[in-house]
This record gives sequence, C-alpha cells and structure tokens, in this order.
Amino acid sequence: MTKRENILNIAAALFVEKGFSATSMKDIAVKTGIEPASLYNHIQSKQELLNVLLLRIANKFCEGIRTIEHQNTPSKDQLIAAIKSHLKIALSNQNLTYLILQDWKHLQENEKNEFLAKRNFYQQNFKSLVERAMQDGEIKKGNPEIIRNNILSVLRWTYNQDLYNNPKTFQSSEFETEILSFILSGILEKST
Amino acid sequence: MTKRENILNIAAALFVEKGFSATSMKDIAVKTGIEPASLYNHIQSKQELLNVLLLRIANKFCEGIRTIEHQNTPSKDQLIAAIKSHLKIALSNQNLTYLILQDWKHLQENEKNEFLAKRNFYQQNFKSLVERAMQDGEIKKGNPEIIRNNILSVLRWTYNQDLYNNPKTFQSSEFETEILSFILSGILEKST
Repeated sequence: MTKRENILNIAAALFVEKGFSATSMKDIAVKTGIEPASLYNHIQSKQELLNVLLLRIANKFCEGIRTIEHQNTPSKDQLIAAIKSHLKIALSNQNLTYLILQDWKHLQENEKNEFLAKRNFYQQNFKSLVERAMQDGEIKKGNPEIIRNNILSVLRWTYNQDLYNNPKTFQSSEFETEILSFILSGILEKST
Repeated sequence: MTKRENILNIAAALFVEKGFSATSMKDIAVKTGIEPASLYNHIQSKQELLNVLLLRIANKFCEGIRTIEHQNTPSKDQLIAAIKSHLKIALSNQNLTYLILQDWKHLQENEKNEFLAKRNFYQQNFKSLVERAMQDGEIKKGNPEIIRNNILSVLRWTYNQDLYNNPKTFQSSEFETEILSFILSGILEKST
C-alpha cells in the first residue's frame, strides 16, 4: 500500500470515530506515524482526504449499479443483484460507507455537488430497477420511490455504526440471507 | 404556547437546518424575535435546549411501546401496533426525530447516558415484541435482532431529511400503507 493510501485509510477510520470536524491533521499524523509536516508531501489537506474518500465510495456504488443494468438478465434478477451488490460494497467498505451518512455535508461546494449528483444517479437507477420489476409483474404494485427508499433503508443500518449497540456481531452471510428474505417476502409467516 | 415552548420549537427547526454546533443563540433570538439577553429568562443555554428536545422525543417513543406492551392483545397485533406507533410519533415530530439521528452525540455526558439508556430500553422492548411473535409462529424464524433492526431501519428513512431528494412529498397515510405492507410481506408478488 502506498503511503497516500495508508493515510486515506487511517483518515477514514478517524473521521468515523471522531467526526470530520473533530479530527485534526495532528491526529492523522500520530496514527500514521508520519511527521505532520511530511503529511503534506502526500496530501493537500484534511479536506482533500474527505473529498477523495467520499467520491471514491460514491463511484463504487455507481459502477456497481451500472454493471448490473448492462447485464442481459430479467428485471427481478437485476433488482436482487442490485440489493446484493449494495450490501457487498457497503460491508467491504464500512468506514467509507458510514462517512456517506455522517460527513457528506462537510464536502466543499464543488465536491458536494458532484457527490450529490452521483447519489442522485444511483437512486434514480435503483428506482428504475424497481419500476421495471413492477412493470414485469415481478414485484407488487406500489409507489416505486417509497419501495426504493424502503429497500435502501433496510440496507443502510448494516453500516450505520451509531444506531444499535452491537451491529458488528453479525456475519456478512447472515446479513445477506436475513435481509434479502426480509426485503423479498417480509416478516409474516405465509400462513398467517 | 408559552415562550419557552416557542423557543424549543424554533431551536429544533434550526438544529435540523444548520446542525446543533452551527446554530448560535443569536440565530435563535432572531427567529423567535426575543432579544438575546432576554432568551436567558426562559432557558439556560443552547445545550439545555438540545437536552430537553432529545429526552422529550426519547420519552415519547418509550411511552408508546410501554402502552402497547400493557395491552392484552396477541403478539402479532402488538408488533403491528408498535410499527404504527413508531411511524406516527416520528411523522408528528419530524424535527425532533431527525435530531435523534443527527445530534445525539452533542448531548452532555449525563444526558447522553440517559438518552442511550432510553434508546436501549426501546430497542430491547421492540426486540421482545419480535421474539414473542416469532415464538407464537406469527412471524418467520430468524435472528430477532436483525429483524428488529430491519423494521426500525425501514421506518427511519421517513424522518431522515438528508437521504433522498423529496421525502416530504409523501402523505402519512401512504407511508403507513406502503411501509406496513413492505415490512409484513416484502416486495415480491406471491406468485413469483
């Protein structure tokens, strides 16, 4: 791993732990073991770190959904693939994904606009997958936007480290099985 | 409404809009039309406002679930009542509920502990409702903690004003119908 990548990883962990505003370049220097003055050989500023980290994770999500849309598979399979892809990206990038929730408001104007455009692209495309599965009679009729938001919100708690006492005690495989079953068929026993 | 209640309402709206840290007593004075110095006749500090607002909404959620547990109704009905109660409290207190997500970390030590104890009480009791419905064969077998988190997370997006472009365009009744259906029976058409 390059020094720059190492600095990015450590910054992400610190931003998650303390919040972007409360993290100092000195904190980053201490954790990386690099002298504060030398940090600037690798990065421009704390702000640059946040910009790079958030746009990187936004790009991963967008690439994930683009790949799925280009597959020549039925709409229901595409929607399920998009749910699995979201979960996989989120669980393999827990710190970065958490920053989407906690710190995107601290992006600077240009990067914030770019970030929000990508978020919007992702949400729109996810909604299209819902709409297509609905048109094909694979999922129930309803408001596609509410359904899209329901799905994304279920996925979201898996990387929101603030909400529950022990979200990290679950296995990824358990998440995938339980959450997919919840989204696809809910909680009720069929017979009830 | 008393002046103090008016100040609390305006503070809640400002905290949502700008964040607790970025809101000043001067902002609150301007919006309430009360001279900054006179504000202190009604409240002690900006911190007191946050404490009162967050403990108030935490109490509403706890009272809601306590009331349901004391009803002598089947476990499935209790779980559905708890879902509806959560949604109703959240949608009638959107600013306060949003502050739970955004600003609880800014509580002071004692109030933070009290707030987290109430959140924990609520989550534990919600999990017990899931467990009882599961034991009664009303809902599918699974990890009760994951199921509880799935349910609460679906409910959560309705008051997280940051996540989507237009969450406020939906009616409360639409939320209740669509979200309850999603939680109970998922998205798939039964036939597929």
